[in-house]
Amino acid sequence: MVYKNKQRVHRNFLCGLLALVWSMALPVKSQPAFDLNAGNAAVEVVIPAVVPIIYQNVSANAGDATLVLRVTTLITNAWYDATAPYHPTAVGVYSHLGRRPESQASNANLNVALMYASYQVLNRLLPEFTGSWRAMLEQVGLDPDDESEDITTAVGLGNVAGIAVANGRENDGMNQLGNEGPIASPAYSDYTGYVPVNTAYRLHRPSRWQPDIQRQGLGLYKVQQFVTPQYALVEPYSFESPHLFSLPRPFKSNITHRKAYVVQANEVLQASANLTEEQKLKAELFDNKIVSLGISAVHAALSQNLTLLEFIQLDFLTNMAAFDAGIFVWKEKRRHDAVRPFSAINLLYRYRWVRAWGGPGQGSADVPGDEWQSYLEEADHPEYPSASACFCQAHAQSARLFLGTDLLQYPVNYPAGSSRIEPGVTPASDTTLVFDTWTDLAQDCGQSRLWAGVHFRSAIDESMAFCPRFGDMAVEYMDSLIKGTAALRLPSQGRDF
Amino acid sequence: MVYKNKQRVHRNFLCGLLALVWSMALPVKSQPAFDLNAGNAAVEVVIPAVVPIIYQNVSANAGDATLVLRVTTLITNAWYDATAPYHPTAVGVYSHLGRRPESQASNANLNVALMYASYQVLNRLLPEFTGSWRAMLEQVGLDPDDESEDITTAVGLGNVAGIAVANGRENDGMNQLGNEGPIASPAYSDYTGYVPVNTAYRLHRPSRWQPDIQRQGLGLYKVQQFVTPQYALVEPYSFESPHLFSLPRPFKSNITHRKAYVVQANEVLQASANLTEEQKLKAELFDNKIVSLGISAVHAALSQNLTLLEFIQLDFLTNMAAFDAGIFVWKEKRRHDAVRPFSAINLLYRYRWVRAWGGPGQGSADVPGDEWQSYLEEADHPEYPSASACFCQAHAQSARLFLGTDLLQYPVNYPAGSSRIEPGVTPASDTTLVFDTWTDLAQDCGQSRLWAGVHFRSAIDESMAFCPRFGDMAVEYMDSLIKGTAALRLPSQGRDF
Repeated sequence: MVYKNKQRVHRNFLCGLLALVWSMALPVKSQPAFDLNAGNAAVEVVIPAVVPIIYQNVSANAGDATLVLRVTTLITNAWYDATAPYHPTAVGVYSHLGRRPESQASNANLNVALMYASYQVLNRLLPEFTGSWRAMLEQVGLDPDDESEDITTAVGLGNVAGIAVANGRENDGMNQLGNEGPIASPAYSDYTGYVPVNTAYRLHRPSRWQPDIQRQGLGLYKVQQFVTPQYALVEPYSFESPHLFSLPRPFKSNITHRKAYVVQANEVLQASANLTEEQKLKAELFDNKIVSLGISAVHAALSQNLTLLEFIQLDFLTNMAAFDAGIFVWKEKRRHDAVRPFSAINLLYRYRWVRAWGGPGQGSADVPGDEWQSYLEEADHPEYPSASACFCQAHAQSARLFLGTDLLQYPVNYPAGSSRIEPGVTPASDTTLVFDTWTDLAQDCGQSRLWAGVHFRSAIDESMAFCPRFGDMAVEYMDSLIKGTAALRLPSQGRDF
Repeated sequence: MVYKNKQRVHRNFLCGLLALVWSMALPVKSQPAFDLNAGNAAVEVVIPAVVPIIYQNVSANAGDATLVLRVTTLITNAWYDATAPYHPTAVGVYSHLGRRPESQASNANLNVALMYASYQVLNRLLPEFTGSWRAMLEQVGLDPDDESEDITTAVGLGNVAGIAVANGRENDGMNQLGNEGPIASPAYSDYTGYVPVNTAYRLHRPSRWQPDIQRQGLGLYKVQQFVTPQYALVEPYSFESPHLFSLPRPFKSNITHRKAYVVQANEVLQASANLTEEQKLKAELFDNKIVSLGISAVHAALSQNLTLLEFIQLDFLTNMAAFDAGIFVWKEKRRHDAVRPFSAINLLYRYRWVRAWGGPGQGSADVPGDEWQSYLEEADHPEYPSASACFCQAHAQSARLFLGTDLLQYPVNYPAGSSRIEPGVTPASDTTLVFDTWTDLAQDCGQSRLWAGVHFRSAIDESMAFCPRFGDMAVEYMDSLIKGTAALRLPSQGRDF
């Protein structure tokens, strides 16, 4: 038996580092006293309250996209629905709460509405942290016990809209309550019966996904489990069903096409051997869905001086685009159940040495082929297509259309040694990555999955070509919401069994 | 496919709660300014610095005993070795550093020596946290850059003894550096080639261990992996080899003895159905090796007014007893590879309902037999024999012999709702568990594994009957150290491959 695990940086170091990355990437400094009249409560209060809890309780590296996106999409949906009545024409997704006169569309009212909406959604999604959500409101002088449902007030709009979003989504197929599927099950657990055909210990079927063994902290090792296979069954916002779309089978991942199988594995090995510092940082950046997706949208909104209402529209839009894209990606991942590079390479080069990245701080080295490891730990799901590449395309396309420009100029700072995988070593000196356009961002995002060693090229290319349409569809739905022509969406009813 | 996972309290809540339990259980209040001349730096400085990092980085519930005990045993060993020269006759395990005159055996010198010894060991065991270890020294006015090896001074004794312990143990079979076994591997990973015969998805062989699927945070699920099977190969302190000892095969866990197999499963079900509040709290207490083992020794030392030197001897002794017992337990766990109750019960009652604990806050209920879950999540290793029961017997026996009394009177407070598994529900009102004697502690410790649903009776009974001898042997070795007759131990050389 062979271990393919990684010498990983430990969890709490991560939390600290990522908090740092977060604070560097966020252009707005958190202020001691938040100003309801002039500030942006979404960026200055809600996001700083939620992000640490995502790192702690949802996904240590913000890499588990299905869970992270669920939290961020439902929050931004609630912001949008709660503030729609302050817009001249907009309606919410899960509530149509009438129209407030323009004179009431003050920053303060928008902030109050989005804060109560966040509070309601967070209490339903992450009820263990109710103390944190109460504190979030109290820190800006709001009363968490104000349960007003008077929709002529900002408090009432926030409460009613937030509750409607939580109700609308709690039976949407994700098994949030553990009540979906034929029998009761733990929250967010698979109810579709996915079982990997390979074990972590042996690659019986080399075309198919194999769970990896990954290290947690000092010395615990755990075997991967496909995360939320039922995400394929979740109700999308912007299209009817993911079965409207499909991708070709991953030809080169089929072991019976042996020459192609070897060629695509070799391409990953070559990228691994030639990994540059910049590629390492980009791999880490795009692995973190909060910094790559979430904060790029915040950056765009702030640098282009969007109003608070426009910022909320953009942030909900980009989250929705990725959320819906993920539903399609999960359907395909489940259907193709494709092998990851680590399995293929460990198999093909079992009794040979390969030139590749040699582990944290080791640079390029000769390593036993059955010991080869990717720069990033693989996410908990089959390989094809690339989820990250698809999310980035959907995100970039929706932002580009909404903003009417490809220009982005998003800077991400990495102080010397701040790498998560190679702390103290990478980068050698302070480095700033700048993404000039949304196109550049999405391009690097896709390629970084090959550099990171977690995807073959086909999985990236297919996602990059196919997934802008999820941005298009999200924009189309968002337009109908903003124009006020979208029908009120009824709460999801779950699946029949 | 059936999920047997638990609706678990989330990680960061745990950290907070356990920090609370820790602070309640620890009789000494942490003081703003530590007094080197009058205080106990081990209890007041080192333990409070190390425990949060164990929870964060080693084991979230302090339940992964092989890893937790490694950290605590090496630290207490370093305390002991560094302060032995201040005792009239004692010698260290990994260093014999001469004798300091009685006039120098001040509390301040003992504290300084044990602080530097801790610093050296911690920097080697948990080098990612070097900032914390520096702060630990600095908070009491010591200079972490003082690398003196002058063994006529407390600083030098601490440094030299600490380094010797770290050197002595870094190739002891545990794969701390990832260099043991035939090929390089990640730190603490298995190099013995253990592969479970069952998968998490199917119990092919009902007598053998099956990894469970366990929840982490909001919605990640991971499959268990036998934690550090190589612990069976680690060099013990107090006996030559674990192969000197063995236990009978677990007759009732053999599916071919079907009647016995059913009877022992039914006993676990019955305990589950009748679980009391007190049993739940004891199950949680004894699952946490820091509060049950570590702090009970601290309590005994403080309540019996041991000198600082005596406290150090007791704490190293009890850690060593459990550490060595674990080596034997791991050999047996590996050899028998026995099924856990959840697998047997899920199999036997597949299409039937059983009366049992129904999940957090649910009390006794009728649950589908293939959904039955134990009150505690199972630890990451095969069932037989019970590690906890063995640790507690070794710990209690060594403490009893060292202290010359069975009297303990150890109180552990549980405020209303402070349960880890049933937060907000259990206990209904503030509760104090009091263990009058070491015998009571070890007895409840063993039984609690049946109440918790993680062990069958045989695994507990065998450990309880067999394991006091590990306390005896630890005391015998400790006597030779204190009398100064023990030979200097050479650094472990690892295994030949």
